[in-house]
Amino acid sequence: MKNYFSSGFKLGVLGGGQLGRMLLSETQKFDIYTAILDPNKEAPCARICNEFHQGDLLDFDTVYNFGKKVDALTIEIENVNIDALDKLETEGLTIYPKPSNLRVIQSKARQKTFYTDNNIPTASFSHYAFLEELKHSYENNIIEFPFVWKAARFGYDGNGVKVVRNYDDLQSLPDGECIAEKLIPFKNELAVIVARNSDGETSTYPVVEMEFHPEANQVEYVICPARIDNNIAERAQEVALKVANAFEFVGLLAVEMFLTENDEILVNEVAPRTHNSGHYSIEASYTNQFEQHLRSILNLPLGNTESKVAGIMVNLVGAEGYTGEVVYENIEDILKIDGVTPHIYGKKITKPFRKMGHVTIVNEDINKAREIAQQVKETIKVISK
Amino acid sequence: MKNYFSSGFKLGVLGGGQLGRMLLSETQKFDIYTAILDPNKEAPCARICNEFHQGDLLDFDTVYNFGKKVDALTIEIENVNIDALDKLETEGLTIYPKPSNLRVIQSKARQKTFYTDNNIPTASFSHYAFLEELKHSYENNIIEFPFVWKAARFGYDGNGVKVVRNYDDLQSLPDGECIAEKLIPFKNELAVIVARNSDGETSTYPVVEMEFHPEANQVEYVICPARIDNNIAERAQEVALKVANAFEFVGLLAVEMFLTENDEILVNEVAPRTHNSGHYSIEASYTNQFEQHLRSILNLPLGNTESKVAGIMVNLVGAEGYTGEVVYENIEDILKIDGVTPHIYGKKITKPFRKMGHVTIVNEDINKAREIAQQVKETIKVISK
Repeated sequence: MKNYFSSGFKLGVLGGGQLGRMLLSETQKFDIYTAILDPNKEAPCARICNEFHQGDLLDFDTVYNFGKKVDALTIEIENVNIDALDKLETEGLTIYPKPSNLRVIQSKARQKTFYTDNNIPTASFSHYAFLEELKHSYENNIIEFPFVWKAARFGYDGNGVKVVRNYDDLQSLPDGECIAEKLIPFKNELAVIVARNSDGETSTYPVVEMEFHPEANQVEYVICPARIDNNIAERAQEVALKVANAFEFVGLLAVEMFLTENDEILVNEVAPRTHNSGHYSIEASYTNQFEQHLRSILNLPLGNTESKVAGIMVNLVGAEGYTGEVVYENIEDILKIDGVTPHIYGKKITKPFRKMGHVTIVNEDINKAREIAQQVKETIKVISK
Repeated sequence: MKNYFSSGFKLGVLGGGQLGRMLLSETQKFDIYTAILDPNKEAPCARICNEFHQGDLLDFDTVYNFGKKVDALTIEIENVNIDALDKLETEGLTIYPKPSNLRVIQSKARQKTFYTDNNIPTASFSHYAFLEELKHSYENNIIEFPFVWKAARFGYDGNGVKVVRNYDDLQSLPDGECIAEKLIPFKNELAVIVARNSDGETSTYPVVEMEFHPEANQVEYVICPARIDNNIAERAQEVALKVANAFEFVGLLAVEMFLTENDEILVNEVAPRTHNSGHYSIEASYTNQFEQHLRSILNLPLGNTESKVAGIMVNLVGAEGYTGEVVYENIEDILKIDGVTPHIYGKKITKPFRKMGHVTIVNEDINKAREIAQQVKETIKVISK
């Protein structure tokens, strides 16, 4: 096993947003030299990584040339040029998650097909190369309202996902490859993060429960552990592990699931990286997800995923009606509360619903944590000057 | 109250070693722009701070000019040019800890006098401007063997401290201002970290217990909570708080104490900053000492100093007989153990007893943590290539 610590080994990361920024805390802790590629020279990682490269993550040459400068490569965002990764992998570079996994996950259509091919429970769906085909399918009574439309590619944080309830909704969809998924009434949205290293060692975080903002379709609260029956939690963890093993995944895989009204677990989608649903782990877990990501991609022993205390995460998103230089109003008031930790991502400009940071609330009592989370949510406001 | 988060406010830190490096994790979390001054261009902070300045911390102009570039100034090492800080403070710069406190603490003689002036229990001592005066005092039977000699200034990690048991020991002492302290037989060395902000809000961490390496006079294990009676722990916290209040201290003050054989608490010395005895807090406490330092110097509300779990810290110091490019032998083996987190400080060259990192062991059961700490200590070796 290679000794990475203070060794001059150079890790490359595609993407320098908030996930990369939190990863840097861990690469610093282990003294692993880290180079970042991001299109934005003001990216959250830009000033605090060992080496920053500005460039387009979707451009073949940019990604390829960056890959040639590092000893191993990982991602903090999945929308990157996979052809360049394929070539780098062929030439011997260690890349985790594997480019072949990323290619499947980048496309919601391929992802869904992968689940059905591998007997992983998921909502039934149809796949269309063009919007016209979807409309044709509706007009011929093959699908019916309501259904969930998803753009096949580059959906992020609810962009590219829409519940289609009527003909007007259908007409307003953007063109392009897409899927139409059965709208499943569910009780709960759950997520499980699985880590797997290249030795095949796996480790599963507790099930978390997500509450979404009704309008912005962004997670508002992530609650760990989910307040669900143990047997449901165990089933959710089994499903998540099955997905990671089916992919022969290496790295961190966040598996988002629906708990249906009749207690079925259905996989919604996966993210091949550290994930918003795991941010609570920085304060609550024995091993946080960013350290676990490093451990998994470097084929180190995986850490303990149990929690020390209950954790709840509140996303800090830009308030509606404010665009401009960010101000975190009332942040001092939430700092007065025990067990409250704000994380500010270092973005200078806020706009409505932009993810600007998050706050973790930890407490031995999850109900107390939930009360404080509400209080935090109602106190702090992300506005502009 | 000023809103520091993502605001363009610039914090300056004198010193860019491991304490600065761990502080940077917290300034990044809060997005507080941080500039570092350190004489070593390869200092642990050099590549990961927002702005790095290379320069001599004891040079008036260097410190003064650095101070003119920042909105507030703090330290991670106390051996800095205080005259420059005095001038900066006169000119309106916010500096915590206060230069007047640093001036007292920099000198062990002034420190001891401060304790006796403020009725803070400490071992009795004599103060000498020159070594000759100490020898004269011995020859005139004013002091007797054994006693503890301490250089008045610039002692660090046991350098500048020596138990003088006989005439040979006396002859081998270096010249210069010094104190001679009564050698107190003690059961235990304890430490308490107190945070105090400029509003006068105080907050006290639990008492920790320290085990020293017999030869190098460096801390080997820091154990939190200390395995002592509650009433002794309370007295230790009271004494520490009394010291911080006597200084009207702002920032973090680590108070090292002896628990004598007849259960007296005597203050040994203080460090006006984050401290080795508080590293366990990163994994074990609700608020780690580095975040607490930021909160105190920025006059933010102080965080909860309680522990989520028991924590033990093992220092990673260079093994005897090895000097050169560092290798952390068997680090993968300790990563296999639950609740074990190595912190590597990013120093490229190891030498005997140099502090290269630390490992934190957390567990719900302190006795289990202590067993694991022993195992960690016996497994990992800091050697050279």
